Amino acid sequence: MKFCTILHNLKSPMNVGMIIRSHAAFSGHELIFTGQPWPWKFKKGTQNFSHKLEKEINLKHIEDPLECLKHVRKMGYKPIAIEISEKKIFIEDFKFPDKTALVLGNEGSGLPKEFLEQCDEIVTIPQYSEVGSLNVAVSASIAMHEVMKAQPPSCIVKDEYI
Amino acid sequence: MKFCTILHNLKSPMNVGMIIRSHAAFSGHELIFTGQPWPWKFKKGTQNFSHKLEKEINLKHIEDPLECLKHVRKMGYKPIAIEISEKKIFIEDFKFPDKTALVLGNEGSGLPKEFLEQCDEIVTIPQYSEVGSLNVAVSASIAMHEVMKAQPPSCIVKDEYI
Repeated sequence: MKFCTILHNLKSPMNVGMIIRSHAAFSGHELIFTGQPWPWKFKKGTQNFSHKLEKEINLKHIEDPLECLKHVRKMGYKPIAIEISEKKIFIEDFKFPDKTALVLGNEGSGLPKEFLEQCDEIVTIPQYSEVGSLNVAVSASIAMHEVMKAQPPSCIVKDEYI
Repeated sequence: MKFCTILHNLKSPMNVGMIIRSHAAFSGHELIFTGQPWPWKFKKGTQNFSHKLEKEINLKHIEDPLECLKHVRKMGYKPIAIEISEKKIFIEDFKFPDKTALVLGNEGSGLPKEFLEQCDEIVTIPQYSEVGSLNVAVSASIAMHEVMKAQPPSCIVKDEYI
């Protein structure tokens, strides 16, 4: 299993930093910013750890969302939106493709309809309460965990990070 | 499936805020701070959303970790540490008890050995890279997701939050 991460118009450097950490920990391929100009401006001190990772992982910026999807499809990745939607599949019922591009949207407004329509599926993480909602970095990380755990354990270098 | 969340000596209000959000979204029972005096001081504006949730969910403070474990055991919850450890079970191989108390430790130092020894199990979220490590709020949320998804879908009010 391989995955890319596509972040559409994210605003919070804190969330972006946390997604970068998870993307690295789950061994993601490219992490692509789309829908806005080059967005991350890490504040000195506050996101030091993510700032270091920034140099370690494969970060890209493709401003036009449709160009971004073209780019990942060209590499064989299928875009799967992680979003709350009526037209959805719950994450525990979904078999992720071998090459998944996880698509995540803005903290407030989510993914625009016309971008969602270009994704192969809309996958939702079920919540069990009307109080509270999952942070975008938490949703992204749960999706990465779900993508990677489908990998046969024999292929996973599980103990190397201890 | 029911769960409590125990936070031992967490330092970052940002992480605590995010864990409170996930705890609410996954419909957790009590959220208990231990190992330090009452710790959350939300900064005005920055954690507004979590600050509101603070009133909605069941927050407790039990300074002594052993008293805290006694308290959750008395309610029938089994303490399960989410931690990187040599003596561990990977999360995808672990069947969470019907009543789980998820135990999470400090951002830097994790859970102290003597506290870990009092937990029923140590469960680890596998990472697939030596670069990067999961944020404690991300780890907590992945564990909550894993606990709750074992719940038969018929019991899950999945659509109510849309």
